[in-house]
Amino acid sequence: MEVLSRIASNDGHGENSAFFDGWKAYDSNPYHPTKNPNGVIQMGLAENQLSLDLVQEWVQNNPKASICTAEGASDFKDIAIFQDYHGLPEFRNAVARFMERVRGNRIRFDPDRIVMSGGATGAQETLAFCLADPGDALLVPIPYYPGNDRDLTWRTGIQLVPVNCESSNNFKITRQALESAYNKAQESNIKVKGLLLNNPSNPLGTIIDRDTLAESLKFTNSKGIHLICDEIYSATVFSEPGFVSIAEVVQQAQHAEEPINLDLVHIVYSLSKDLGFPGFRVGVIYSYNDRVVNCARKMSSFGLVSTQTQRLIASMLSDEEFVGRFLCESSKRLSARHRVLTLGLAQVGIGCLKGNAGLFCWMDLRGLLREPTFEAEMEIWRVIVNDVKINVSPGASFHCPEAGWFRVCFANMDDEMLAVALGRIRKFVGQARPMGKKMGRKLEISLSSRRLEEIMMAGSGGAHKMSPHSPMPSPLVRART
Amino acid sequence: MEVLSRIASNDGHGENSAFFDGWKAYDSNPYHPTKNPNGVIQMGLAENQLSLDLVQEWVQNNPKASICTAEGASDFKDIAIFQDYHGLPEFRNAVARFMERVRGNRIRFDPDRIVMSGGATGAQETLAFCLADPGDALLVPIPYYPGNDRDLTWRTGIQLVPVNCESSNNFKITRQALESAYNKAQESNIKVKGLLLNNPSNPLGTIIDRDTLAESLKFTNSKGIHLICDEIYSATVFSEPGFVSIAEVVQQAQHAEEPINLDLVHIVYSLSKDLGFPGFRVGVIYSYNDRVVNCARKMSSFGLVSTQTQRLIASMLSDEEFVGRFLCESSKRLSARHRVLTLGLAQVGIGCLKGNAGLFCWMDLRGLLREPTFEAEMEIWRVIVNDVKINVSPGASFHCPEAGWFRVCFANMDDEMLAVALGRIRKFVGQARPMGKKMGRKLEISLSSRRLEEIMMAGSGGAHKMSPHSPMPSPLVRART
Repeated sequence: MEVLSRIASNDGHGENSAFFDGWKAYDSNPYHPTKNPNGVIQMGLAENQLSLDLVQEWVQNNPKASICTAEGASDFKDIAIFQDYHGLPEFRNAVARFMERVRGNRIRFDPDRIVMSGGATGAQETLAFCLADPGDALLVPIPYYPGNDRDLTWRTGIQLVPVNCESSNNFKITRQALESAYNKAQESNIKVKGLLLNNPSNPLGTIIDRDTLAESLKFTNSKGIHLICDEIYSATVFSEPGFVSIAEVVQQAQHAEEPINLDLVHIVYSLSKDLGFPGFRVGVIYSYNDRVVNCARKMSSFGLVSTQTQRLIASMLSDEEFVGRFLCESSKRLSARHRVLTLGLAQVGIGCLKGNAGLFCWMDLRGLLREPTFEAEMEIWRVIVNDVKINVSPGASFHCPEAGWFRVCFANMDDEMLAVALGRIRKFVGQARPMGKKMGRKLEISLSSRRLEEIMMAGSGGAHKMSPHSPMPSPLVRART
Repeated sequence: MEVLSRIASNDGHGENSAFFDGWKAYDSNPYHPTKNPNGVIQMGLAENQLSLDLVQEWVQNNPKASICTAEGASDFKDIAIFQDYHGLPEFRNAVARFMERVRGNRIRFDPDRIVMSGGATGAQETLAFCLADPGDALLVPIPYYPGNDRDLTWRTGIQLVPVNCESSNNFKITRQALESAYNKAQESNIKVKGLLLNNPSNPLGTIIDRDTLAESLKFTNSKGIHLICDEIYSATVFSEPGFVSIAEVVQQAQHAEEPINLDLVHIVYSLSKDLGFPGFRVGVIYSYNDRVVNCARKMSSFGLVSTQTQRLIASMLSDEEFVGRFLCESSKRLSARHRVLTLGLAQVGIGCLKGNAGLFCWMDLRGLLREPTFEAEMEIWRVIVNDVKINVSPGASFHCPEAGWFRVCFANMDDEMLAVALGRIRKFVGQARPMGKKMGRKLEISLSSRRLEEIMMAGSGGAHKMSPHSPMPSPLVRART
């Protein structure tokens, strides 16, 4: 008898991919400016550290927000024993209000439709359990977040069917691509139960425009399937055009000639990215479907948010002045960071997909590939991770249909570390390309992987001669001290 | 096309049972000593509030334990962004150490085998996903915690097969009952993948003795199936004989002639009951099987413990002096509370199964049943909830094989409320039984349900004449003011 389950015995967790291999490379040799200056720089983690100082300051100024301070401890007992899966009313209210604010107060969210979950990870799985049976499918535009495979399919037994998006069209989602994916699934006797959109998109760093959202809603409505919008990066939009939530489109569609079926629309949200609290595990499902709200709430028992955290979040997000300041400042800092990275890359001829959201750029290294294949992409990726010592994530791990794209995260480090990373990229590209060549949006070189590796080996060989504990002799690093 | 999944459309969440109906009766009319003295008293909730004052005091004296105090806020950022599913090392260390201490320091727990989960609820489901495929079964001695049906079967598709335990034998688990349940499942072509024990037992309030544990381990080992021990009430044992963990039995079995397969043993733990923190959602799987540890850890992404809470727990449980004081005082208070309830019941001739653990008594009302059926049990239960206005949980909701047993929780209220509850029970039984009759362990009356209802209607009718805002004229309530 097989001792463990099929789920435990398969690879549905998805960790055996380059996405996670890069993390392991980082974990085994993490960069530190003085202790390990030749270590790997982590640019594979979509973490938002840029404005946590504002939160910390707020926390210090608001001791009543915590049940672990002299000012707040009188509520310790009530909070510690509260296990109602509806959540603290003030928590649901504050989260609904925050979601409204992030969406420009153009729509209302009913706090009674807010269902807690263990991060967006738990929210996605919960929705999958509610909406689809094993074997059923959700359509997902590619490229998409690699965790979707684990979150949506591993334990639920459902499958994801890719919707093809092309770089020639800036990876825009078209009605034609949706219909084509749907029909292909039908032909294979796969029951399609919904479409999952991620807006703003991880990994693209772009937002989905209003027309595309409306078209997607029309599509799902016409097929009688669900539309799930994962909007966990909604507050990371840092320049125009602004973010449009599916909630706005739904609101408008209510007044259209062809009524849409609200029971088929669901939003996934989380505070992990917008506020930078992935450790707190605050995920949310907002569904317009009463049965889904009820069922998901019962399922939320498997991943409730700690009431200690609910209480803190409720207090913090109820401070409207703080929220306003945080959103404004966070957006400014993300914008500045994005500019530094994209300009730095452009200076060495590397382009990125034009984006205005998220914690990452979608970097175009197609020009560096030996040939337009995912094997060639992996070759370059190994050089970048092992020799340039930067962990970026290859497009293949996002199921990108075209080789040569890489996600580069920029909000999980300080300015100095980003400067070091850019210095490494500059050196790598400079050595890889004959000096004096005209800069273009695309690298105008074609380099065999072997040649690249030789160059990088030489580079890292040089670096290895330094003491591992002395700072790198880069002016950028010195500027820090 | 069915819009939602089969899971969302079925009743696998188990909330359509008397267990939860009683909660709803309480929720719609909760007792309050002055504001609603005729409301329902909640004795259906296994919550441990008795020693939270000690925790609150500790929290106030240890501001560094929190990231939301001036003293601890410098770590806010590091804690907020920490999302490694291994958990904070200090958290795992402290929980392992606490588990050792609760088990008398007779065994060691390896912190690297501690896997986080969203409460014991998440832990149970995670293990089910790891160990069994849809259709497979776990054996579970009856009576058992009603939440098991939701936690273990709803989303996993596995099933629970009852192991019969008899009141004539104090609900002891016998080898014969285990073999019989196993064989019956085999005959029905059900693949049995494990045995789930709950020690101390909810709802019995008893512990499983060492010999029974050893016999159970022998049984599972001989069949090559898993043994899951849910030990979430381990620190609620308040009198001799002391608690014996499966970990001790495993340790001893290692030195026996017949070696046991460690890969088949798993422990579920939580701080919700022992410390009284259900709101914090701290659940734990401790597995001796490396593959289960690895797989469950990947699954823990669906229900990680908030790092804010991990940090607090790590600090608190690392304070060995506090832990010692808490465990000692908590046990004393539970013991005193248990004595008040069981003596109070005995005074009116109601017996309970002899217990020494948990937050509840297993009350024997067999003597009050019109006939020994679950219909009669439900009749009595309705009277108790609707007329006596106490929410207790009927044995049927625990899959008890014999009618007439009820779980009565005693640690989720203060002394005064318990006194009011006992007063109501006294009045109910006094009215139900001719005065002057000899007291016995069992009620020596046989009462038709109609008669009971008449009596109770009269009783509540009298109560209704009072102003809903004036205190009940019971000396017990007056004593409080």
